[in-house]
Amino acid sequence: MRMYDVIEKKKRGFALTKQEIYDVINGYVADEIPDYQMSALLMAIYYMGMTDEELLYMTECMAHSGDMVDLSEISGIKVDKHSTGGVGDKTTLVVAPIVAACGGKVAKMSGRGLGFTGGTIDKLEAIPGMRTAIDEKRFFDIVNRLGLSVIGQSANIAPADKKLYALRDVTATVDSIPLIAASIMSKKLAAGSDKIVLDVTVGSGAFMKSVDDAIVLAKKMVAIGEGAGRQTIAILTNMDVPLGVAVGNTIEVIEAIDTLKGNGPRDFQEICEIFATSMLVLGEKGSEEECANMVKKAIQSGSGLDKFAEMIREQGGDESYIYHTEKFQKALCERKIFAGETGYISSMNTEMCGKTAVILGAGRETKESSIDNTAGIHFYKKTGEQVGKGEVIATLYSSEEKKLNDAASYLEKGYTYSKEQPKKMDNVIARVSKDGVVRNPDL
Amino acid sequence: MRMYDVIEKKKRGFALTKQEIYDVINGYVADEIPDYQMSALLMAIYYMGMTDEELLYMTECMAHSGDMVDLSEISGIKVDKHSTGGVGDKTTLVVAPIVAACGGKVAKMSGRGLGFTGGTIDKLEAIPGMRTAIDEKRFFDIVNRLGLSVIGQSANIAPADKKLYALRDVTATVDSIPLIAASIMSKKLAAGSDKIVLDVTVGSGAFMKSVDDAIVLAKKMVAIGEGAGRQTIAILTNMDVPLGVAVGNTIEVIEAIDTLKGNGPRDFQEICEIFATSMLVLGEKGSEEECANMVKKAIQSGSGLDKFAEMIREQGGDESYIYHTEKFQKALCERKIFAGETGYISSMNTEMCGKTAVILGAGRETKESSIDNTAGIHFYKKTGEQVGKGEVIATLYSSEEKKLNDAASYLEKGYTYSKEQPKKMDNVIARVSKDGVVRNPDL
Repeated sequence: MRMYDVIEKKKRGFALTKQEIYDVINGYVADEIPDYQMSALLMAIYYMGMTDEELLYMTECMAHSGDMVDLSEISGIKVDKHSTGGVGDKTTLVVAPIVAACGGKVAKMSGRGLGFTGGTIDKLEAIPGMRTAIDEKRFFDIVNRLGLSVIGQSANIAPADKKLYALRDVTATVDSIPLIAASIMSKKLAAGSDKIVLDVTVGSGAFMKSVDDAIVLAKKMVAIGEGAGRQTIAILTNMDVPLGVAVGNTIEVIEAIDTLKGNGPRDFQEICEIFATSMLVLGEKGSEEECANMVKKAIQSGSGLDKFAEMIREQGGDESYIYHTEKFQKALCERKIFAGETGYISSMNTEMCGKTAVILGAGRETKESSIDNTAGIHFYKKTGEQVGKGEVIATLYSSEEKKLNDAASYLEKGYTYSKEQPKKMDNVIARVSKDGVVRNPDL
Repeated sequence: MRMYDVIEKKKRGFALTKQEIYDVINGYVADEIPDYQMSALLMAIYYMGMTDEELLYMTECMAHSGDMVDLSEISGIKVDKHSTGGVGDKTTLVVAPIVAACGGKVAKMSGRGLGFTGGTIDKLEAIPGMRTAIDEKRFFDIVNRLGLSVIGQSANIAPADKKLYALRDVTATVDSIPLIAASIMSKKLAAGSDKIVLDVTVGSGAFMKSVDDAIVLAKKMVAIGEGAGRQTIAILTNMDVPLGVAVGNTIEVIEAIDTLKGNGPRDFQEICEIFATSMLVLGEKGSEEECANMVKKAIQSGSGLDKFAEMIREQGGDESYIYHTEKFQKALCERKIFAGETGYISSMNTEMCGKTAVILGAGRETKESSIDNTAGIHFYKKTGEQVGKGEVIATLYSSEEKKLNDAASYLEKGYTYSKEQPKKMDNVIARVSKDGVVRNPDL
């Protein structure tokens, strides 16, 4: 294989062969292909796309560039869940315990937040004592006994993706849908679960800004998963508003606990129940209806909450916080945000909400930043709700008084208002499986 | 300027500003912008193109990255001529002396051959003693006294182009029309002539395979030249057959001498007269008709041939070869090529003709290869001519017997035959100036 010929072939829109793709990815990981050729190929892929076949080969090769986690020591069907990122997205904290409480198996490796999106690992670590760096043997053991464990991603998952992503990040080739699909799915394939439920977020707080793009991405990821022999479905969810009412590590943990009790914000509660149900169906625990009922019971009975507490204890955390959320340290400083107009909130720029949380200290400005677990935002009114001018619509929290002003003036710019009530967007927009796409309201 | 933002902007199809273009080119030359970002930008340019304004900024910046040759010590209007490359293209050897004989000024820096196209410098050096590495002072002096000098390109002409070309060459971004235009014109602007006549070749032996692409390239180069204050015209010529009947350094020099005497092959004679006329018109030596007559007289009187001999002598060459071409060393070995069918030659793959010459030793396989001046091909029949099966249609020449077989079997594959006479293609296809495009037969 000559890299030049591969670039030329893709540039002209021809599909690459399996051998060519493997030679390119393996050659790049081995430093035999220089960055300047790879970036030219990535830009050509940006414009010309990839077939489902090409994408499967590329993703499998990327997955195999590092450890392929073998979950066979864990009995039962392991179902993974992955979100393409959002603001206020604490779904895993609720869904994994519910699935485990219903007899499912969730052996999940999660990431940290970067940019305006939060990370599950950062949220879990807001619980005193909680450890997410756990060796494989213990991880398997916890999942076998409890039905779930959520740990940080091991260092050697899909190193090809790490190297490619670093190059895409400096060559403006991040927003290529096939490359996004390959990046996500290479890590999912390497992480070893049997089946995968994807949360593909759409809107101002998501990477995919349009439903059409999100459907394309979802279809590509499902095709890769199915092609690799892992049953995969994708659910498109609305990220044009923050999910739930809390953004920030500690307050999101508390919101997750409320939701495990059935007292979560309506949108978040619905999303969690849908995802838990889908994971149970994939885990072959029953029909859609049966699994939905199991989920409701796990919430009503408190067995989901107990599972969460059990996992926290097993991983070194202080489970008393789960049952007594008043123990969590509160932010030293806070500031109210007021509605700018009388009428309806017609839009919230959700990326700006996420960035506001970062300004407050809830996220990392760079990989090296430390996190203020008490920092965040509580929303009282979201898009579509009626407000009066001067009414409190949110509260900002931080350890540092000086961060509040910057955050407040930034966040205020993220709202628009209207006199008429805006059309309500569905929480769940579509469902994509190997059988095709079903958009709401036919879902 | 952040290079990332520039890549993103071009990727989305927005035009870059003058400042951005200057920052990119200067930053790249200064090694401040890494190859992997530049190759991503080049690939984005391949797909999105560049406006005439962007292209002018880029080309001027590339020209100014090295020496800007100042020809003001040479009196009169200096008219440059450049060909986008072809097979059997010895036009400069004929045109420059004729223009000088008619009172024009040609201060020309030429290149060497690479790949399947020959280079004017290599051809000149087939004349014993001829030197093309001449310092600027002497170059100016020769042009002032004789009206012409053809020398090798100085090392410091448009180094930005050298660096960019080397990157394009390994990232499959050579065949971008705006990048080709910028590459050629940056060197022309730096070379200092007041006006420029471009020979844009089209066909199987040219870089541009289609007339439409060649017109786009010609328009872009004319726009750059005119934008930079240099009157520029482009003439599209047919390179679907080799130009003239000789390909190879010595035999092309002999063919050029024949043509200076008015005895050249019809197609080549016509091309030379048209280019010489255009250069004289740009040099303000008279009307189109007047200049055409001057050209004819320079041929009939032998003043063009004498100019050529004068230049050879001034640059250290043995001018007796010009008047006694039988003195040129002949190839030690030769081999005939026979028509494969009875009928008409319907096509000659001209790139294959050029590559055959390289196989024979007439060109360089790599930059380091040495050249066999006696090697080459003489064509007796070209596209459109009637042949009988077994008739001799060409002779191959080389110093090495063993090269003849490879060359012969390769060249034979380059011919197709037909029973009906194929449509004849015009020698001159179109003329492009700032006033627009005029295609033959309306030329």
